[in-house]
Amino acid sequence: MESIVRKGIAFDRELLKKFDSLNKKKGYKNRSEAIRDLIRKEFVTEETTDPEKRMMATLTMVYDHHKHDVQHNLTHMQHHHSDLIRSTLHVHIDHDNCMEVLILEGKVKDIVHFSDSMLAEKGVKHGKLVMTSG
Amino acid sequence: MESIVRKGIAFDRELLKKFDSLNKKKGYKNRSEAIRDLIRKEFVTEETTDPEKRMMATLTMVYDHHKHDVQHNLTHMQHHHSDLIRSTLHVHIDHDNCMEVLILEGKVKDIVHFSDSMLAEKGVKHGKLVMTSG
Amino acid sequence: MESIVRKGIAFDRELLKKFDSLNKKKGYKNRSEAIRDLIRKEFVTEETTDPEKRMMATLTMVYDHHKHDVQHNLTHMQHHHSDLIRSTLHVHIDHDNCMEVLILEGKVKDIVHFSDSMLAEKGVKHGKLVMTSG
Amino acid sequence: MESIVRKGIAFDRELLKKFDSLNKKKGYKNRSEAIRDLIRKEFVTEETTDPEKRMMATLTMVYDHHKHDVQHNLTHMQHHHSDLIRSTLHVHIDHDNCMEVLILEGKVKDIVHFSDSMLAEKGVKHGKLVMTSG
Repeated sequence: MESIVRKGIAFDRELLKKFDSLNKKKGYKNRSEAIRDLIRKEFVTEETTDPEKRMMATLTMVYDHHKHDVQHNLTHMQHHHSDLIRSTLHVHIDHDNCMEVLILEGKVKDIVHFSDSMLAEKGVKHGKLVMTSG
Repeated sequence: MESIVRKGIAFDRELLKKFDSLNKKKGYKNRSEAIRDLIRKEFVTEETTDPEKRMMATLTMVYDHHKHDVQHNLTHMQHHHSDLIRSTLHVHIDHDNCMEVLILEGKVKDIVHFSDSMLAEKGVKHGKLVMTSG
Repeated sequence: MESIVRKGIAFDRELLKKFDSLNKKKGYKNRSEAIRDLIRKEFVTEETTDPEKRMMATLTMVYDHHKHDVQHNLTHMQHHHSDLIRSTLHVHIDHDNCMEVLILEGKVKDIVHFSDSMLAEKGVKHGKLVMTSG
Repeated sequence: MESIVRKGIAFDRELLKKFDSLNKKKGYKNRSEAIRDLIRKEFVTEETTDPEKRMMATLTMVYDHHKHDVQHNLTHMQHHHSDLIRSTLHVHIDHDNCMEVLILEGKVKDIVHFSDSMLAEKGVKHGKLVMTSG
């Protein structure tokens, strides 16, 4: 189990007041939790600049399943990188559009390269990669 | 079926050369496709500034399932916003950490508010919201 | 003079260790200062979503001064929005390219609109807006 | 003088219509210019991932000149990196706050490192780095 330490942090009174009210608006019940979240966000940003770092990621894509062989091609490419893919979730948005969310795990450089090639595929209309870590 | 139009676009020769080589690196087989993707990315950025716009989204979260009642609380909150949630995907990262990916659909303002409150929950270590549209 | 308050914040021991080492790498001499900076960054992000909020901003642009009437047009547009512009800094990058940095002050919506129209001008090759506040 | 080439680009009719109307709103008079700007923005994003690439940058900082020796320290640090700094612009925001904008030129890694250390300085309340190229 993780051990907890308590440290005194100095705030300008006005900054603290504004921070507490932002946290309330966002739904935080606890100031320490809000600060830890800001710190973790900073780490994730930092980690994604290291191409060798192992991370988790989600790749969200929207594509038109009527178009070309997009579904076939995407499946084909996923099988060639099955070591990177933990699972895939598929949602039917409307008559034309599908959303596919891939859960990826691997080195930053491999995740970025695979994600680029998926988004470059004809028929994929929009997509975005989010990296995170445990 | 969508109709296609072809338009003449003027490029500086050097810019075009660099663009073609970036596209090749990213895996694009087709210059028009790369340009359409840049345009669509611009639209999604634009749309997310309108709080009333209906969009799709994925919320990626990492949390420590040992901590507090995080799993219970997250499930509870999801049931209170079941109108926003299309589906939920769960991945066990390691001994402590879980990744949960929610597929959301609704107005930008409701998606942002719900996402803020999930990420503010104690035990949720990191998360990010991606909005997209068909 | 601003008054300072000191608050106890709970950290996981491991998170604190990683945070201290990141801060050292970035040049922080003081943990409280690093936390206050994370909080202020969060506020600036928050404030820029309010179109009526008054803010400061810098608009960085690169343009080719040989092209068209770009310099003339940019100057003309700046004079039509002289109420937004505090000052302008000009740097000659190389034979062709100039960098111009505008210091802006005004409502978020006016800053964004003016910035869009400057970046849309023919000959302006790249640019980016940064908003900040006191 | 740069030579211009004209290439046929295929668009879905609906996408083109939305793109033209966004461009009009932003102030573009010309579709090709809007596309070239999207492409150049993509390059700048790409270039900043290469630590050895030489770029131009602006660092925007807000600080409280009453606090500590912030002004003295910032000047001191700037003199130690005078090879990176092309010029510095200073604006008095209000009674307490100053804005300082530094024009930087150098390798991506040196710009990032210098910028981190400036923003880490006690008294600097907020800041942001923008990289660009000619």
